This record gives sequence, C-alpha cells and structure tokens, in this order.
Amino acid sequence: MRIVRIQTESGPHWGQLDNDMVYLTRGVTGERTGQTVAFAEATLLAPAEPSKIVCVGRNYLDHIRELGNDTAGLPTEPGIFLKGPNALAEPGGTVEKPDWTESFHFEGELALVMGKQARNLTPEDALDAVLGYTCGLDLTARDRQKTDLQWFRAKAADRFCPLGPWLETDLNPADLRVQTRVNGQTRQDGRTNQMIFDVVQILTYITRFVTLEPGDVVLTGTPEGVGPLEKGDTVEVEVEGVGVLTTLIG
Amino acid sequence: MRIVRIQTESGPHWGQLDNDMVYLTRGVTGERTGQTVAFAEATLLAPAEPSKIVCVGRNYLDHIRELGNDTAGLPTEPGIFLKGPNALAEPGGTVEKPDWTESFHFEGELALVMGKQARNLTPEDALDAVLGYTCGLDLTARDRQKTDLQWFRAKAADRFCPLGPWLETDLNPADLRVQTRVNGQTRQDGRTNQMIFDVVQILTYITRFVTLEPGDVVLTGTPEGVGPLEKGDTVEVEVEGVGVLTTLIG
Repeated sequence: MRIVRIQTESGPHWGQLDNDMVYLTRGVTGERTGQTVAFAEATLLAPAEPSKIVCVGRNYLDHIRELGNDTAGLPTEPGIFLKGPNALAEPGGTVEKPDWTESFHFEGELALVMGKQARNLTPEDALDAVLGYTCGLDLTARDRQKTDLQWFRAKAADRFCPLGPWLETDLNPADLRVQTRVNGQTRQDGRTNQMIFDVVQILTYITRFVTLEPGDVVLTGTPEGVGPLEKGDTVEVEVEGVGVLTTLIG
Repeated sequence: MRIVRIQTESGPHWGQLDNDMVYLTRGVTGERTGQTVAFAEATLLAPAEPSKIVCVGRNYLDHIRELGNDTAGLPTEPGIFLKGPNALAEPGGTVEKPDWTESFHFEGELALVMGKQARNLTPEDALDAVLGYTCGLDLTARDRQKTDLQWFRAKAADRFCPLGPWLETDLNPADLRVQTRVNGQTRQDGRTNQMIFDVVQILTYITRFVTLEPGDVVLTGTPEGVGPLEKGDTVEVEVEGVGVLTTLIG
C-alpha cells in the first residue's frame, strides 16, 4: 500500500494512493473517510510527522572512501546524527541553496517512517515497527560539516531533508537499488545490501538509546557518488519499489 | 510570572504559579480556566513541549580548558548540537545511569523556552521571542562523546535533559549565577556573563539556519566543574532568579 500526505483546503491530510486516486483516511493508518482526490491534482507533502529525524552517517564503504575518511578500522557501531522536523521538505519542492555554504551536497538514501513507539527493539521485531519506506535526500553543507563542532547547520538546517513521494508499506528493505540523478545524469547507484549496518541493525542500535515515536523518520546512509549542487539543478532520488523523489535547487 | 506544567488526572496541563497555588491555563500562554491545584500537591513536568532541543557546546572558556580542548583559537561561532523531545525529564525525577557509559557527567545550564516562531532573529528582537527561562541539566556520556562519530547517544539519549522546575518569564539572562550541586556539594558556580556567546548571539546564530518553534528549548552551555555521576547521587541545578532543578540518579 502507498500512503500519501497531501495538502487539502482544510490543511494537511493523510490518504491511500490507489490507481491514480487518493482516498483520504482518518490519520495516517485510520479508515478511509469516503473523500477522494485525483492524484494528478494532489499537492504532496513529506509523508511523515516526526518528533525527530535520526540519520546514519558513513554506512556504505565506498562513500567513506570517497570522503577521504579512514577505512582501516571500519565502524563497529552505526554513526548517528539528528535533524529536527524543521528539516523536512515536500516532494517536488524547491530548496534554496544557502549563502553560507560553498559545497552543498546531495546524498540520496532509503528512508523509513516508524509505525509504532519503539524502545529496545529486537532483531525479530524491528521491521514490524516500521510503517513504510520512502526516498530521502540528506542535503549536506559539506564544508560546514568539516569546520563546525557538530553537524548542526551542515545537516539540520531548514528544508535539508526532502522526503517522499509516499510511503510504501509492503517492501523488504534488504536489497533495494538506490539511485540519485542530477539533471538526469546518474550520480549515485548503490544497493541497500551494501550497507555496513542494515535496517534491522540500525533500528536495534538506535532504540537502545532513544525511543522512536510513530512518525519518526530514519535515514539509512548514502552510497558513493555524492557531489555539489548549484542553483537550477534538479535532483531525483529513486528507491527501488518506492518511486522517485524530485527536488529543485533554487 | 512563573509558568508550570503539571500532571493532572486529565493529563498534562499548563498553569501559572502564584503564592503556592497553580492556576490552570488554556495552553501555555492562555487564560486561566478557573481551576486551581495546590502547588504542594502538584506533580511537575518539564515546562516545554519542544519540536527540538538546541544546545550550545563549549560556551564558557574555563569549561573548554577543563575538557582539555584547544583554547588557542577561541570559537568564532557557537558550536551547536541537537537533542530530541525524548531527552526531556521532569523536575524531581530519576534518571537511570546507562550501562553503556563509564563517565556519566552533569552539566548545569541556563535554559530557555521559545514563545514565538523565530527565523533570522535580529539582536533587537531576539529576547522578545523567548517565553521564559529555566534550569537545564545537559546529561552527557563523556566517553561516548569522544568515541562516537557525532554526539548522539552521548547527549540525546532518553531523559538526558531534565528541565525545570518552571519558566520564569520576567528575567534578564545577561548576568545570572548558575550553580550545580551534587549531594549538596557545589561543583559548578559560574555566571552567564562569562558565556563566550550570550543569549542574544546564540538565538540570532541558531535562527539563521533553523526555524525555532514555540516550545523549542535552547540550552546555553555549561560553566567549568563538570564531573561524573553515580547511582544514588542527587544533582541540583540552580539558576539565579529561577530556582532549583533537582534530579536523582538511579
């Protein structure tokens, strides 16, 4: 099932996408209200209402190498950082390139949205706590990531996390192709089976320390191929089995 | 005015504290409902409903020195990191010492809670966007802070941010005494006028990158004197003009 969040005259609304029609629902997982909106006329929003966005850094070996980071000792635990809800941006939206970075990078990723409150997840119940999967664009001010004490503005600035276009609930995240295209040219092309820590390991690790709430977003790391964006660029993140998240750089 | 958040039979509720009586209000800044609760019988909650908790690291020179960090080149911009709402803990509450750190440190701080949505604040309007001031305890797994890629579990684990006991709305944050006591012994004793970046500079800096929402919490950094906590310890953070935040380590 595909779950969408759309803008309606009465505000943001959850719905189910089926055969080019959006069936509005009571909440993200509630019953259909009987109201419908043609998908072609729907304005998509980021499909999540998170209390936090939890991200994994350096989760693909070739990406660690391309940034010039040490791979002699591979990470033994996931490297985690946070974005706040202010970072979300809608599918098809425009994100302004900030004037305080000279190196505004794309990082295409598999993202997931939690369906249950989760603390101390076991490997057996980790995927059951996930509501669905989508595409995430982890926008990164690469220069500020290197100069700042922590990855705050480099990762968590407003609209630095486009997400969408919808949640796909029936998907196995173990081996999905993840591609990023800039102006139609493929720049990243990896598979989630290349992750150092897979989705189950990521979720069991995070929830040892932090309670994940329904709606919380997890970004799972980016394959190699990251690079800079300029005003006017169009970025597409495609996750196999989900679809394409398009973001314009303004 | 002192604004409190208390647990009632119908759930969490905002109120105003006046002469040992809590006058319940409609929302954090709304009118009084006419209901009252004796303060002596009130169960206090953390006085904030944040979408994010934004913290300043290394904002007092003597604290930078005590951690052995380089002070040859003082920071030219605030060093910022995030906690999520999961980190909040109530005044008088117990925080369990995690089994995954050997160095669980207290950091007493002046905290503030936003009253308005704020983006690109100017020095002139920064303090007008603050609803009130309170005491914050920035609990820190010092060993994990050093070993991990980013300060995630080291700073943002569940209940790593006790906050309270209330918001004081009528306070100038420029020169307040900030003390931390462990089992009655004074361990930190600083003044906010020793900050490298004052509250106005912190708020104008953060809101260049991130929109602060009403209820968001900002922690302003800790003076020198941090140290480890053990099970059974009682930590008190006292901010002049506010009061005392007490936390038990379990």
